[in-house]
Amino acid sequence: MEITRPFDLLNQALGKQVLIQLKGNRKIRGTLQAFDQHMNLVLDNAEALEGDQPAEKIGSLILRGDNVIYISP
Amino acid sequence: MEITRPFDLLNQALGKQVLIQLKGNRKIRGTLQAFDQHMNLVLDNAEALEGDQPAEKIGSLILRGDNVIYISP
Amino acid sequence: MEITRPFDLLNQALGKQVLIQLKGNRKIRGTLQAFDQHMNLVLDNAEALEGDQPAEKIGSLILRGDNVIYISP
Amino acid sequence: MEITRPFDLLNQALGKQVLIQLKGNRKIRGTLQAFDQHMNLVLDNAEALEGDQPAEKIGSLILRGDNVIYISP
Amino acid sequence: MEITRPFDLLNQALGKQVLIQLKGNRKIRGTLQAFDQHMNLVLDNAEALEGDQPAEKIGSLILRGDNVIYISP
Amino acid sequence: MEITRPFDLLNQALGKQVLIQLKGNRKIRGTLQAFDQHMNLVLDNAEALEGDQPAEKIGSLILRGDNVIYISP
Amino acid sequence: MEITRPFDLLNQALGKQVLIQLKGNRKIRGTLQAFDQHMNLVLDNAEALEGDQPAEKIGSLILRGDNVIYISP
Repeated sequence: MEITRPFDLLNQALGKQVLIQLKGNRKIRGTLQAFDQHMNLVLDNAEALEGDQPAEKIGSLILRGDNVIYISP
Repeated sequence: MEITRPFDLLNQALGKQVLIQLKGNRKIRGTLQAFDQHMNLVLDNAEALEGDQPAEKIGSLILRGDNVIYISP
Repeated sequence: MEITRPFDLLNQALGKQVLIQLKGNRKIRGTLQAFDQHMNLVLDNAEALEGDQPAEKIGSLILRGDNVIYISP
Repeated sequence: MEITRPFDLLNQALGKQVLIQLKGNRKIRGTLQAFDQHMNLVLDNAEALEGDQPAEKIGSLILRGDNVIYISP
Repeated sequence: MEITRPFDLLNQALGKQVLIQLKGNRKIRGTLQAFDQHMNLVLDNAEALEGDQPAEKIGSLILRGDNVIYISP
Repeated sequence: MEITRPFDLLNQALGKQVLIQLKGNRKIRGTLQAFDQHMNLVLDNAEALEGDQPAEKIGSLILRGDNVIYISP
Repeated sequence: MEITRPFDLLNQALGKQVLIQLKGNRKIRGTLQAFDQHMNLVLDNAEALEGDQPAEKIGSLILRGDNVIYISP
């Protein structure tokens, strides 16, 4: 599937694991369940990372989009 | 219930305990009573956490949505 | 009175004492006289707190809503 | 005069001295001449304070509303 | 001329020298040539100040309004 | 092709490598796949840089536009 | 040409060298090719400055307007 608009990438990533780099040096990894046009996200099986290692299990969460730097499938 | 939009997760969490990670390293836990489309929240029996331990009883509160990083049911 | 929207809590708190946690580690306590949809507030008999102790008498004030983390009746 | 909306307090304060607490630990005192719905203000005989003491005479000024924490008549 | 709205002060200051206090402890002084409703400004013969002393000649410039704390004619 | 509006430069850069300077001293390099009017971007083969050297392979990502300082093709 | 609105200065500067002071103590110099009403800019032959000295050649770039403090032709 070709990507012509940025949110196409999130559409492709639904149901898959994504890595989210947040402002303030936080990283979260989880399965993308839903998103909206503000980049608000719902993740399942989410965990906070330190470096590339899991540091804390969070479970499901809704993340406010204005904290996002990037999301990588 | 399936989650197709991010706020569906908050709908499911009404009346249940949620953990809220705020900007500036604050964590608050409480029972979710209400929310709106700005992620403004009302919590009941809220308490501020340090690490994972209760540090201060706050009671009921209205939280301004722009402080939220994530909310986990 | 049931709370279904976040601002219902502020409506209930009119005329009563509230504690306001501001960004930047400020706390203010006072009697809630008025609010609007931006969370701008008017307080009467307001005082700044350090920890939980009164530190400075301010009197009446209008507080700009974007400084608020939470308001607790 | 009763206060039912936050800006009513500013209306009452026109022509009187007000103390303004700004973000970034600045305080300014002066006579309120005008305001608008963004909390932009015009002050006359304004002076910057350090603690509660006058530190610098500024004269008249227009202050951008997004710097305000609170305004106290 | 009476001032009833904050931007009246800027209207009066057109063609005159103004002092601008910016966020982040910068001060700029120059002759006000133009402004708009976002407080974007054009200054002529502008110079950056350190304390109250000229520190750098800038010449003409357009300043983005969201950097302004206050403008004093 | 002449550039008359800022986003024309991004249009020309589609499918080519770009360097992105982010707020908070981050730099990312990758192939520009898509962008929108908020400067949200999709990059392919993205990598984080330290100085001018690749420091971390990220792969594909969606970057939130409000983190951007500049983008250079 | 008289300047009556702030963006008139940018119009006059098209095709000429400008100095841009950014938030966070960055300075960039380059030839102004395009701008829009958000102060997004395209520069050609851009270089980052340290103090007043060229420190890094960047080439062409699109700069996001919300980083700008001032632009001086």
